[in-house]
Amino acid sequence: MKIVVDGETKIMKAIWYEDDNVKLIDQRKLPDKFEIFTAETSDDIAYAIKNMVVRGAPAIGITAAYGLAMAKKKNEDMDAASEKILNTRPTAYDLFRAVSYMKNNGYEMNAARRYAIEITGRSKKIGEIGNELIKDGGNILTHCNAGALAVIDWGTALAPMRIAHDAGKNIFVYVDETRPRLQGAKLTAWELGQEGIDHAIIADNAAGYYMKKKSIDLVIVGADRIASNGDFANKIGTYEKAVLAKVNGIPFYVAAPGSTFDFSIDTGDKIPIEERDENEVLEINGSRIGPAGSHGKNPAFDVTPHEYVTGFITEYGMFRPEELGKLKTLMEKDLFMNVK
Amino acid sequence: MKIVVDGETKIMKAIWYEDDNVKLIDQRKLPDKFEIFTAETSDDIAYAIKNMVVRGAPAIGITAAYGLAMAKKKNEDMDAASEKILNTRPTAYDLFRAVSYMKNNGYEMNAARRYAIEITGRSKKIGEIGNELIKDGGNILTHCNAGALAVIDWGTALAPMRIAHDAGKNIFVYVDETRPRLQGAKLTAWELGQEGIDHAIIADNAAGYYMKKKSIDLVIVGADRIASNGDFANKIGTYEKAVLAKVNGIPFYVAAPGSTFDFSIDTGDKIPIEERDENEVLEINGSRIGPAGSHGKNPAFDVTPHEYVTGFITEYGMFRPEELGKLKTLMEKDLFMNVK
Repeated sequence: MKIVVDGETKIMKAIWYEDDNVKLIDQRKLPDKFEIFTAETSDDIAYAIKNMVVRGAPAIGITAAYGLAMAKKKNEDMDAASEKILNTRPTAYDLFRAVSYMKNNGYEMNAARRYAIEITGRSKKIGEIGNELIKDGGNILTHCNAGALAVIDWGTALAPMRIAHDAGKNIFVYVDETRPRLQGAKLTAWELGQEGIDHAIIADNAAGYYMKKKSIDLVIVGADRIASNGDFANKIGTYEKAVLAKVNGIPFYVAAPGSTFDFSIDTGDKIPIEERDENEVLEINGSRIGPAGSHGKNPAFDVTPHEYVTGFITEYGMFRPEELGKLKTLMEKDLFMNVK
Repeated sequence: MKIVVDGETKIMKAIWYEDDNVKLIDQRKLPDKFEIFTAETSDDIAYAIKNMVVRGAPAIGITAAYGLAMAKKKNEDMDAASEKILNTRPTAYDLFRAVSYMKNNGYEMNAARRYAIEITGRSKKIGEIGNELIKDGGNILTHCNAGALAVIDWGTALAPMRIAHDAGKNIFVYVDETRPRLQGAKLTAWELGQEGIDHAIIADNAAGYYMKKKSIDLVIVGADRIASNGDFANKIGTYEKAVLAKVNGIPFYVAAPGSTFDFSIDTGDKIPIEERDENEVLEINGSRIGPAGSHGKNPAFDVTPHEYVTGFITEYGMFRPEELGKLKTLMEKDLFMNVK
């Protein structure tokens, strides 16, 4: 992805391995500060995932893969390291897949590199396939951040927009700010700004307003876990926007690599939903918004039933929810995805 | 309403006339500070409405009524004063009704007092009627602030909850924080806390999640303007929550006094929607959330089509959208409402 640091445009990835450590763009600090977080141990990796230094399902998987390879090189107890990393966040399936992948590949650094390269290449492919949905002059809504920061490069939901923009299409992106953690306002708007893609930040409450006005003609979001029937978990609020899209006749797509599909569960009811600290709701940028005595509730994800999904944009092509059996077959034939 | 100031519980109103000035609880400062704003001229009244020292359709109407009576007593040019006050905010119908009412009553202080007393009494009646919808153990969602602060006492959407609580019913209120201005987190949670009503602040994005889980069994919101067919304008995001309630089979009620009904327009398409400053989206508590180069869009209201409304709770009783003709007839026979 393009990043302007001190006036200079650089091409960077969100996660990489360097000098025996895992390096992460610190996503808690953006857009105010561009800082690199260095993880030296599996404890640091677990901290970074749990505290959202890095977030986004594919990026969590890649961080776990590099983290385990680093732990192996540093002679850590690998059962303990895996356990620690697995217990950070419950919803994103990529985390569980990446840990299995690394275990089955002896936690080798080459396996981690391959995992990162595969996922990156696949997200570019998602962009190329998704680009076909985007028309010149298109107005697209996205929720949360499913950009390069959430993968390592390209992104999932943002990959089609990057490629459409690079292809010279004139597009406009409505960015849901995505309370409580504001990943839309802070991360997606920042990425779009770096790429020079025209956009506006809106309150999550305004998404329905613009859909009803037909100011939006396409919705693309990412996913944290997708069940066999196409029900999927994504950032809290995705379900609301999906329902609104359907009611207003606007196509609603989910962009995700195969690594996010969990064919071991039949429906979205089986996806565990993480409850996070109430202070993510009650405080913004460190400033309390609610009265002293009030409490908050903070589910981090919701599950959108498959009937609200027009299609899934994957590296294998586009699939309607009822076609996910075909995707499962393709993934079973894909050596990378098939490594248990 | 009950307000605890310096440890002492007081019974206060949100707006009153004292020492030749209009006094307002400064709603921009809550919940952090409890301050009284003093309006000495019609300029101050216009400032207070435009900048949301006072907000909520009925409260805006009452402020305008007292403001015009004050202007008359102070020998201001009444055409100019009316014009100034009318040009503050375009959506809430109570503002236009209150200005007409005052004009037709010679801008007399007694008329303003009557206007305030009528609206307050009517909001209590709304509470009594709406209380019938609330069961013991009920879980209610509300959006924005349609509480005592938005009227002068009792509230519209919150009035039934106050009365249910006073009657000993055990209720729980899910409070949409209501971005961008956070009137839910800042004002509704504060009012509920003062009354000792159990509640939790949630991100607007989480309302759908709790509706889908059936954690919520009733939605009550206020309104800024209601058209003849039952389409209504209310705080941005109301439309989203109404659609989600319908999809999940949850009753969705709108609580509003007759003064909010605009029978001069047939549908909600005729309601002007105020666009407010983008910085209300881009900054929270004075702290910027988006990147430096990004812009925002900030529609303050949306229009919810009547098919999403289970019923309107008014001082005349409850009405389904298709029954609003009956309400119109009742209002035509009501001397207070009928003063042009």
